[in-house]
Amino acid sequence: MTDAHDPFPSRLKEKQTPFARIDPIVHARNQWRWDGPLDEVALSHYERDGFLWFSGFFSQERMAPFFDELNRMAEDRELMESEQVITDPNSGDIRSVFGMHRLSEHFDRLTRDPRILGMVRQLLGSEVYIHQSRINDKFGFQGSGFDWHSDFETWHSEDGMPRMRAVSASLMLTDNNEFNGPLMLIPGSHHWFVPCVGETPDMNWTDSLKAQRLGVPDREALATLADKGGIQAPKGPAGSLLLFECNTLHASNENMSPWPRSNLFFVYNSVDNRLVEPYAAPRPRPEFLGAREYCEALTMYDEFPELSNQGVSPLH
Amino acid sequence: MTDAHDPFPSRLKEKQTPFARIDPIVHARNQWRWDGPLDEVALSHYERDGFLWFSGFFSQERMAPFFDELNRMAEDRELMESEQVITDPNSGDIRSVFGMHRLSEHFDRLTRDPRILGMVRQLLGSEVYIHQSRINDKFGFQGSGFDWHSDFETWHSEDGMPRMRAVSASLMLTDNNEFNGPLMLIPGSHHWFVPCVGETPDMNWTDSLKAQRLGVPDREALATLADKGGIQAPKGPAGSLLLFECNTLHASNENMSPWPRSNLFFVYNSVDNRLVEPYAAPRPRPEFLGAREYCEALTMYDEFPELSNQGVSPLH
Repeated sequence: MTDAHDPFPSRLKEKQTPFARIDPIVHARNQWRWDGPLDEVALSHYERDGFLWFSGFFSQERMAPFFDELNRMAEDRELMESEQVITDPNSGDIRSVFGMHRLSEHFDRLTRDPRILGMVRQLLGSEVYIHQSRINDKFGFQGSGFDWHSDFETWHSEDGMPRMRAVSASLMLTDNNEFNGPLMLIPGSHHWFVPCVGETPDMNWTDSLKAQRLGVPDREALATLADKGGIQAPKGPAGSLLLFECNTLHASNENMSPWPRSNLFFVYNSVDNRLVEPYAAPRPRPEFLGAREYCEALTMYDEFPELSNQGVSPLH
Repeated sequence: MTDAHDPFPSRLKEKQTPFARIDPIVHARNQWRWDGPLDEVALSHYERDGFLWFSGFFSQERMAPFFDELNRMAEDRELMESEQVITDPNSGDIRSVFGMHRLSEHFDRLTRDPRILGMVRQLLGSEVYIHQSRINDKFGFQGSGFDWHSDFETWHSEDGMPRMRAVSASLMLTDNNEFNGPLMLIPGSHHWFVPCVGETPDMNWTDSLKAQRLGVPDREALATLADKGGIQAPKGPAGSLLLFECNTLHASNENMSPWPRSNLFFVYNSVDNRLVEPYAAPRPRPEFLGAREYCEALTMYDEFPELSNQGVSPLH
């Protein structure tokens, strides 16, 4: 429950002024900073904006099998009726499926792809594990938007994530364009923590995954940050990758196009930042929203072990 | 009421297949086609896409006085409480004010600006009058979206506009960008008439101006047209101008940015296309939505009469 020494107070009774970030953004320090796939240009970019966009990171062909896997999952009635599947508040269609990496070996291996895991370890400066994984679908003409929020604000308040030392990898399974509700980010917003107003009710997550109501920064803070940093919505073909820092403010608008939008999210947390008790909620959320049990450090999965001396090197 | 020979049947009990347009798009014929400010490139573009975009058509300075005028109007309590002012269904803020050109001499003169009126007369091939004028506001973080529709479908069904011989001029009073809910159009959609399902209830307009529910094409038709023509959302600085054909499908998404979006709309109709009885509604809508009384041909208003022999020439 609420801690008097909480460095990131939120879900408050009264509005409190945003304050400057106190945690590093790139956690690999000193000579370890460059011990990974990201160069200084990319690292500085990430520090400044709070995200990195890789258009066409994987080929579209590489993404196709994941759709087959998803279709198989959609036929699993028990799964579809479980709490891990969230439906759209307006249409009733599947909006999110949580715990993808625990449901499927394909998705598990993808979280351990050396290309992704190498960058994530470099940014977080340690071994990492999956805090949460999900797929977010927006069907044509149907997908609702999602209001502005910092993931860290929720993970800290409701899951007990101590510090800002997590990163989300969002992999586009479909093209993301201007009209199908792409993720929008406020560059530079991760430099600030915006305490939010409103006490967290018990079992808040049963509503909050459909529409973000708590943990939404006040409009004044949002306007200040958007006026300063602007808004960006990275767009690109299926296979594109977005890495975004856990405190970067983001949102998405409705999908008003006929084109579906399907994005996969893997949230990586540092093994040195494992969950404690929630800072501003009556009790922890379920395992599929914030891992407490399955949080061993990930090992890389190399599809071509005979080539393992080439490419991204494992962490020292 | 419903006419057995209605060439554009809509508000039907059962779904009916879209059919190809039967009216011209550029109405000035033969040698009159080029008797106006638009060249063949622009005219062909308009025929193909159903709209023309002029980024920075007027200077931003020229737009500023209209804000002062709007502020004066906002202080007019009687006006603000009238039916001409439509509030946002979610926030309650002012969303639209109708009949701008009848409320203010400034706006009246703007409808008769030679630069705009010259293009409109050329496109409609006749003298024209104002069928409807309005300002559409979307405040930051507040403006709701508006579902896909053809204006002509409404004007024909609810106002009794006989044929597709009208054009909307939308003038941007603020910058329109990717994030403040700009108008989206489906290029080429004006080549088809999409009959819509759902009988028009009496006084439908008291709801329909807040959110388009009737007169929304079915998703299959929308998907076919968007797959064929794509979607475009013209963006540019205050002072930009959009001319769009009355049957071009358009929509807009929510304003999720802190930046307000304010667009002025003047709907020009041909004097040879004046309203008759509604084709699919119990009775006509009020004068401020579809002019029946004030529909004399517009004359140009030249701010610099001593230069009247230069520039756009009046219609023969």
